[in-house]
Amino acid sequence: MRTVYVNGAYVPEDQAKVSVFDRGFLFADGVYEVTSVLDGKLIDFGGHCKRLRRSLGELEMRLDLSDEDLLAIHRELVARNDIDEGMIYLQVTRGAADRDFVFPPEDTPPTVVLFTQKKPLIESALAARGQKVITIEDKRWSRCDIKTVQLLYPSLAKMEAKAKGADDAWLVRDGFVTEGSSNNAYIVTSDGTIVTRDISSAILSGITRQAVLECARDLQMKIEERPFSVEEAENAVEAFSTSASGFVVPAVEIDGKPIGDGKPGPVATRLRSVYIEKMRQAAI
Amino acid sequence: MRTVYVNGAYVPEDQAKVSVFDRGFLFADGVYEVTSVLDGKLIDFGGHCKRLRRSLGELEMRLDLSDEDLLAIHRELVARNDIDEGMIYLQVTRGAADRDFVFPPEDTPPTVVLFTQKKPLIESALAARGQKVITIEDKRWSRCDIKTVQLLYPSLAKMEAKAKGADDAWLVRDGFVTEGSSNNAYIVTSDGTIVTRDISSAILSGITRQAVLECARDLQMKIEERPFSVEEAENAVEAFSTSASGFVVPAVEIDGKPIGDGKPGPVATRLRSVYIEKMRQAAI
Repeated sequence: MRTVYVNGAYVPEDQAKVSVFDRGFLFADGVYEVTSVLDGKLIDFGGHCKRLRRSLGELEMRLDLSDEDLLAIHRELVARNDIDEGMIYLQVTRGAADRDFVFPPEDTPPTVVLFTQKKPLIESALAARGQKVITIEDKRWSRCDIKTVQLLYPSLAKMEAKAKGADDAWLVRDGFVTEGSSNNAYIVTSDGTIVTRDISSAILSGITRQAVLECARDLQMKIEERPFSVEEAENAVEAFSTSASGFVVPAVEIDGKPIGDGKPGPVATRLRSVYIEKMRQAAI
Repeated sequence: MRTVYVNGAYVPEDQAKVSVFDRGFLFADGVYEVTSVLDGKLIDFGGHCKRLRRSLGELEMRLDLSDEDLLAIHRELVARNDIDEGMIYLQVTRGAADRDFVFPPEDTPPTVVLFTQKKPLIESALAARGQKVITIEDKRWSRCDIKTVQLLYPSLAKMEAKAKGADDAWLVRDGFVTEGSSNNAYIVTSDGTIVTRDISSAILSGITRQAVLECARDLQMKIEERPFSVEEAENAVEAFSTSASGFVVPAVEIDGKPIGDGKPGPVATRLRSVYIEKMRQAAI
């Protein structure tokens, strides 16, 4: 049985509970991060801490733990749960208080929960065969730059993809792809340029996105950060997504049509391997 | 200490807990209803059950309790917590499962939580003086017809209203008011017509909205269900909101400008009293 961290205590997972009055449960008033683990070490932990602080700041949410405290908890969970490869999930909410749309008093302690998931990340059948994506309307709220737990629509999108025999859904606003259900989306044009949506409130600023674009720059690849249409994606020579737990995953089909030759492309394949190598060396 | 219902058990509120793996906590994958209590009886319980079933249906979410079961739980909580006037909150989520955007297996038991809040509803200082509202952009997702716990933006809207010395925020999409942060919004035009947004995925189909419009029809008042602009609201002779726990609350100021003569208007005042009288008689 896993050990889970809940508000200062390490408890067996079946005892890991929060109050029904928790604002994470009643109002989706919470933010989260997912950090990957390779060789028992944390991938891009600094990036995740930085984004967590930004999410908390945007929502004026308290957290009394320093990045060093968070690192210690992450490492303790990796050790206690013997995680060689997998993820650590962290969620912070505005705490428990009687139900009211008005925020609770400022001295209300935030809720902090962390748990681990064991999962092979480097050997990925999905990355090897390439994912099939569908496109659906992006019906989310307009502050997708904040990593909140308002994840019902991404979950519904994922289910719609599964129902259509695909692996994931790319979300489309006003004809342009914003991002995948839980990842950033990219295409490669016929002249070899990597195109991905520019950072705005329409998408999450992916920690993996940032690191993968840095890898691409190091490799002298051409990058354009701008919206791309569904039609451009259909006509791309290749496509892929990036996320903390998926790294780089080629996309080989969109709305039932093959992308390029319908096989994982060289740009995505190279970026996946370069990213994993680089992150593995920098893991802490 | 209140008694709270959690998954079949009646427990003291400090022991009312859900798993950190609950999808309500991790994905905002849950729906809710709030039923008011007057004279220890439930107001429009049938309407709330009907809307709950619709929300569950839209999200393909299970609930193994019948309306009769739910009624029994509501009544038990009213009795145990000695509620003469107040609210009963009900939340159903897709249950607890290891974190995955994909829905858990269909046999995963849903989570069912109910708790009470004591509150004077008929004697309302806010209804007596009239609420001040501000208008802000409606940044919510585009399925506001489903009563989900994705309530972060309404909560932020309420806080922005408070920060500006107002009581609530009316949400505006493309120049037209959709609804209040947790209520439906109405204006009365110079010819005495009540105008409120028509039912669509942009707003919640209020149970109180339906009942109050029926009262208005009984009183031979003219009603138009259509979007109205912020400018129309500023020039209205009166305005008000409706909700399960607020009933009918006059609005006397919008973005710092008085509505009509800046006092609760006769239409809202009359509807409030007629609605309360009618509901009180029909309460179960």
